[in-house]
Parts: sequence; C-alpha cells; structure tokens
Amino acid sequence: MTKPEPPIAIEAAAAAPRKQASNYPAPFAARVSAREKRPLGDLFGVTNFGVNHTRLAPGGHSALQHRHSKQDEFIYVLEGEPTLVTDTAETQLRPGMCAGFAAGGSAHHLENRTSRDVVILEVGDRSQGDEVFYPDDDVQAVLADDGQWLFTRKNGTPY
Amino acid sequence: MTKPEPPIAIEAAAAAPRKQASNYPAPFAARVSAREKRPLGDLFGVTNFGVNHTRLAPGGHSALQHRHSKQDEFIYVLEGEPTLVTDTAETQLRPGMCAGFAAGGSAHHLENRTSRDVVILEVGDRSQGDEVFYPDDDVQAVLADDGQWLFTRKNGTPY
Repeated sequence: MTKPEPPIAIEAAAAAPRKQASNYPAPFAARVSAREKRPLGDLFGVTNFGVNHTRLAPGGHSALQHRHSKQDEFIYVLEGEPTLVTDTAETQLRPGMCAGFAAGGSAHHLENRTSRDVVILEVGDRSQGDEVFYPDDDVQAVLADDGQWLFTRKNGTPY
Repeated sequence: MTKPEPPIAIEAAAAAPRKQASNYPAPFAARVSAREKRPLGDLFGVTNFGVNHTRLAPGGHSALQHRHSKQDEFIYVLEGEPTLVTDTAETQLRPGMCAGFAAGGSAHHLENRTSRDVVILEVGDRSQGDEVFYPDDDVQAVLADDGQWLFTRKNGTPY
C-alpha cells in the first residue's frame, strides 16, 4: 500500500477532530471535555512538531496546568478571549496575541471564562524523553519510546 | 548578567521585525524584499522550533522555491490571499487555510500576487544537519553547526 498523497492546503477549521478527545486519565479528562483539537500538521506528513486547531467552548480548558521538561510549546489566538494561567499571573488574551512556553519554564494552560468560543493554533515539538509536570494535580506523564504518553500518580502508581 | 524574563504574552503583529531582512545571497535577497518577518517563538525562549509572523506586501515572495532535507515547515494564513507554489500546482489560499511541508517533500513558496498585504504564521523546526534545495535557482544552503546558513552556488563555489 502506498500512503495517500497529502493535500496541498486545507481550511484548518474543517480538518477532522482528533479521534481520542483526551489522553488524560478519567479523573482529569472531564476538565478538557469542552476542548476540540483538530490536528493539522499530521495531515501534511509533518512529524518534527505538531500543530492543532483547538476550539474551547465556554468553560473549556486547554489542558491541566502543566510544563514540559523537553518540549517547547507556542499558542496563537485566532478567536475569542482565553485566560492564560501561568505560575505568576492570569492574563486575558485577545485574537492576534500569542505566547510561548519554553521547556522547563512556567506551567500554563488556557481557560475560556467567556460565553463565546475560543479558537487557538497550538504548536508543540516532539522531543524524545519528554516528561510533564502538573503542579496542581496528582498526575505525571512520561513520553514512552513508542510515542505514547504514560500517566501515573505522583507516587508512580498507575491510574 | 541574568537573561530578561520573557513576556507572558504579546500582540504578534507588534513584535519587532527580524534585524536581518534576509539570509539569502545578494542576487536573491531582492526577491524577498517585500517580506517582513517578526520572530515570535524566540521572544519566549522557545528554541526547538521557530514561529514567525510574516507580512508579504503586494509582489512579495515568502522565500525562493525550496525544500528542506530534515526540517518540516507549516504555514497558516492570517490575512490576504497568497499563492502557494508547489512542484505540481499553484493554489490560491485564503485566511484560515494552512499547509504543511514535510522534509524532503514538494518544494514550495508563497507569492502575494494581489494588491493587499498577506500575513501568515510560519513554523519550522531546527533539526541539525539540514540542507536546502532550490530547484529553480543556482543556490544551495547547509545549516552549519553554529546555526548559521551557508549559501553556495550548486557547484559549491561561494557567493
């Protein structure tokens, strides 16, 4: 079988949503249930980083508060006014604003505290050996060699 | 000296333009003179990939027609209607459209053939040992260990 030719270009908002809504263990998945991620880079065969078109309905969170050990992240606001929660501040963003999260820097996530949808582009690389630290929740994650995230409690016991 | 704290978030269009307008040798730099790149990821200490807010005035080209050997690229159209030139097609894009360019795939660049500015977000990773192939021009580039691009003619002689 040959791989299908990638498209030349697409309408980002019309890309297919990710099949698995969240990788989080059940106790945490509900917190991101108002989030819809549409992977974009994958559609073109891009592998060194991922790009998602991510919609947060009112009340939606982009993720748990977290920081990566090796992977960098970047977001750009396309629509709506998400609140960016970092270690030191809560900052309301507007369309056209962006933020970057260097590995090992401040923990972060976005919340939609408004009554209108938020849409962001989010970029993250795929550095091997990444670990994710969640300051506010009893969960930790490591990126396994097969590319899957392995979640445990902070004492190492599985969910 | 300590490094300044990165900002929490910024207005992308208000970021400082890149100091050096183009890395291209003089014979080719003119072709991208209507291009203005505002590096965004760097401002936040992101190093694994770069993100630029790039404006193409009417007549502007995003780059020479090119493909990378190791680095992936991705673009998202924020404003205007650039023409995406690939190996096989010319495709007019609109705001909200995106395209990805996997390493070793089709060569590509964008041209603004309209009378209005084009603004894109462009993402590229920083894989070491990258080489750039330009199918239409007598130039080639390799990424040196110091992170600088080294341009030569295709016969290896310097510009």
